[in-house]
Amino acid sequence: MSSYAALEQRFRRMANLGGAAAVLQWDWAAVMPTGGAEARTAQLTELDLIQHECMADAELADLLDSAEAARADLNPWQNSNLTEMRLRWSHANALPADLVAALSNAAANCEMVWREARASSDFAAFCRAFEPLLVLVREKAAAKSAALGLAPYDALIDGYDPGFRSAEIDGIFADLGIFLPEFLAQVLEKQARDAAPLQPDGPFPIARQRALSQTLMEKIGFDFAHGRLDESHHPFCGGVSEDVRITTRYDESDFASSVMAVLHETGHALYERGLPTDWRNQPVGEARSMSLHESQSLLMEMQACRSAEFFQFAAPLMRDAFDHPGPEAADVFAPENLHRMAVHVAPGFIRVDADEVTYPAHIMLRYRLEKAMITGDLQAPDIPDAWQQGMQEFLGLTPDNHAEGCLQDIHWACGDVGYFPSYTLGALIAAQLFDCASREIGSLRPTLSEGDFAPLLTWLGEKIHSQASRYSSHELIERATGQALSADAFKAHLKMRYLG
Amino acid sequence: MSSYAALEQRFRRMANLGGAAAVLQWDWAAVMPTGGAEARTAQLTELDLIQHECMADAELADLLDSAEAARADLNPWQNSNLTEMRLRWSHANALPADLVAALSNAAANCEMVWREARASSDFAAFCRAFEPLLVLVREKAAAKSAALGLAPYDALIDGYDPGFRSAEIDGIFADLGIFLPEFLAQVLEKQARDAAPLQPDGPFPIARQRALSQTLMEKIGFDFAHGRLDESHHPFCGGVSEDVRITTRYDESDFASSVMAVLHETGHALYERGLPTDWRNQPVGEARSMSLHESQSLLMEMQACRSAEFFQFAAPLMRDAFDHPGPEAADVFAPENLHRMAVHVAPGFIRVDADEVTYPAHIMLRYRLEKAMITGDLQAPDIPDAWQQGMQEFLGLTPDNHAEGCLQDIHWACGDVGYFPSYTLGALIAAQLFDCASREIGSLRPTLSEGDFAPLLTWLGEKIHSQASRYSSHELIERATGQALSADAFKAHLKMRYLG
Repeated sequence: MSSYAALEQRFRRMANLGGAAAVLQWDWAAVMPTGGAEARTAQLTELDLIQHECMADAELADLLDSAEAARADLNPWQNSNLTEMRLRWSHANALPADLVAALSNAAANCEMVWREARASSDFAAFCRAFEPLLVLVREKAAAKSAALGLAPYDALIDGYDPGFRSAEIDGIFADLGIFLPEFLAQVLEKQARDAAPLQPDGPFPIARQRALSQTLMEKIGFDFAHGRLDESHHPFCGGVSEDVRITTRYDESDFASSVMAVLHETGHALYERGLPTDWRNQPVGEARSMSLHESQSLLMEMQACRSAEFFQFAAPLMRDAFDHPGPEAADVFAPENLHRMAVHVAPGFIRVDADEVTYPAHIMLRYRLEKAMITGDLQAPDIPDAWQQGMQEFLGLTPDNHAEGCLQDIHWACGDVGYFPSYTLGALIAAQLFDCASREIGSLRPTLSEGDFAPLLTWLGEKIHSQASRYSSHELIERATGQALSADAFKAHLKMRYLG
Repeated sequence: MSSYAALEQRFRRMANLGGAAAVLQWDWAAVMPTGGAEARTAQLTELDLIQHECMADAELADLLDSAEAARADLNPWQNSNLTEMRLRWSHANALPADLVAALSNAAANCEMVWREARASSDFAAFCRAFEPLLVLVREKAAAKSAALGLAPYDALIDGYDPGFRSAEIDGIFADLGIFLPEFLAQVLEKQARDAAPLQPDGPFPIARQRALSQTLMEKIGFDFAHGRLDESHHPFCGGVSEDVRITTRYDESDFASSVMAVLHETGHALYERGLPTDWRNQPVGEARSMSLHESQSLLMEMQACRSAEFFQFAAPLMRDAFDHPGPEAADVFAPENLHRMAVHVAPGFIRVDADEVTYPAHIMLRYRLEKAMITGDLQAPDIPDAWQQGMQEFLGLTPDNHAEGCLQDIHWACGDVGYFPSYTLGALIAAQLFDCASREIGSLRPTLSEGDFAPLLTWLGEKIHSQASRYSSHELIERATGQALSADAFKAHLKMRYLG
């Protein structure tokens, strides 16, 4: 067996263990009884540890060296696969095994504590579990920094979004930081001149919300033979490509937020489903990066499904889903009214409920804080104050409690620092892709008003999904759209949609 | 670290991987979309393979040798743990790694095929997947026979029920084979003289059946912080001790069969929950054997929950669960009537629906067939004929189709040959334990009529659950009941209950 073939075998094992862990993580979030946490933590830690041992095996390093020396024998996909293998190897071997195990344990514990602490807005309880985790995350950043020759925070970003550096992100966020405040003021001013959209009266029974979501998912192209829709505290897309598990959360008084979360996660799911089966369980066959993943969810949710065209198609389904009584139903469930609800801009406390205009502010706040956590300029107990101060500065708001403040997200509780920028990078990529798709598919918007997602999915499948990790993020974006990543399409999209 | 301590560490890893696999298996049966099978098979195969590699590691063999040489340093539990480790090692190392992987793949495939084939009663489709699996199971039996010095079929039994041999089982089944036919005739004759029990009219909505089951589970002592109740084709108890997942299946026209399945699985679950936490993830800390496990489910279902006393407690809950209308409700849901339904004897096609009088016949049939499958006297394509012939001989019945015949059970489809005798051994152990518990707890039956399961659970916890695998099955039974295992208590129980 060639060195390269031996590498494929080893990475296949790691992918299978990672897939097992992904299902166990879904189970934890969606169906596991609370008393199962200790055993599940031990299982996940074991799976992590074995993957780490595979990565740390001296034979693997030798195989990488000799496969790289014989690159000429490899076809382009294999070449990219080898590059991805080396990247993962570098990340994984930056960390000693005991740090991997300690991180996994501390993160699992902190996530459990966070679930309780968020419910009771108890930052002190959270902080007791987060402080030791943050110490370990800093150790991780330092170790990766030394191994990869990147700044510590950049080394963390690189684990989620290879190739992105804070210097580039700083530039993009500076651009948005100039554009957004004035733009937001204009949007709010315009909105104030118009009558507010009519609000549908609930309650909206959860079973009907679920059925509506399933209908929309199927229309968009989600195959329930290869996935599920369930509930969890925080919507996510998990599982594996053959069996994609998306979750949402329901609010009986507001069907739209749950439906939109489902459409968002459906975008993630369709990316997973569109990855090339020939490269299943190999690094090159996986989704390119977190920002690319987020671009697919935001393209679906923000670009496609908050468009006026989408509501032409979806409004009747939404009306029928709830048997809405009363003479106002026709007005409330009119496409135009539902669309106006979907693009209503309102600065608020909660990131996942934020509209696309104010969303970047939430990210810029978290980006600032987590950068400072890694440098050590921000300590865990000081997070609430920094949060309040940042929310005031970015959005002019002060949350009443930590549940609506720094405890709202799961990421830090899981030890995921360096992930947040991906959301806004994803929004930019989504806008740039949708803009290009609209130009290349002449009739894209009319197809959406008929609920026909096939042209869009075909385009995305070809340009993004089927390419998996064949190219770097930057190359992939440029190959798909003909242009380097910038905030231009995002800003143009916002202007068109909100100021018309 | 001592050799023994190093062994504990290695077996803990295997237990964690086994626990992960158990949850993934539950997921497959209870919630996985069909399209996830290929990926799940790969995950489970990988987990199996890694456990096998741990077992096959030469260092493990050395550690076992040196720990056994220092047995004097170990306390009694550690000593038993070491014995169990060696037993597992012997079983695992009887099989080469490629056979383990091939078995795992073929079994996963055959199980998927079986789900479809049973639905359409398509034996030919099943047989195409089962034939290659049976070849591998025979290879497994031959390999274990050589390694353990047991006959091939005994070597398979030993994998589920260590220490049980077909010679002993032949004797027990011969005893039952003499007793049961005449006894069954007497029971049917007596039953024919009495009026048939009144049948409650359905439908019984599934949500209400589920709620009733959950209520009864809690009353009996199931802790939903450490477990779940879900649905699958075939009821089972899975997951891990901290997170026990039981399943049932619902029939809107018959609430009793589902409730009884739940009570059965609850018996399994309480055994898992009662295992000693100090020995979690060690071989000695696991349930003793399949027959002991089955004894706990049958003790709960057959001995405790089909008693007249249980229905004194449960009948009002059952009546209230369904808001049963009409004036006959009081008679139909009277404790005496429900009890008579629960102990109604009727020879039938389906093992899992069988009453306790005819159940052993189903097992004796399967025992005969699987013994012959392993010797090679019975080939896969000949199973249906042998089945029809055996059903006629044992119960005087001829199933109309394979779904009600040889396709009804999941076991062979999973490659589980040698498991079936455990069910009837379990019934015998259950009767012997319950008889002893009744004598030692003076007021056991009255507590059941009050829905107070604490005295029974305390007794079982002390005598069985907390002992885990500290002793052999035969020793455990004798220590708990003061007598060697026999069919005496089972026969006495049947006579008392049915001819009373």
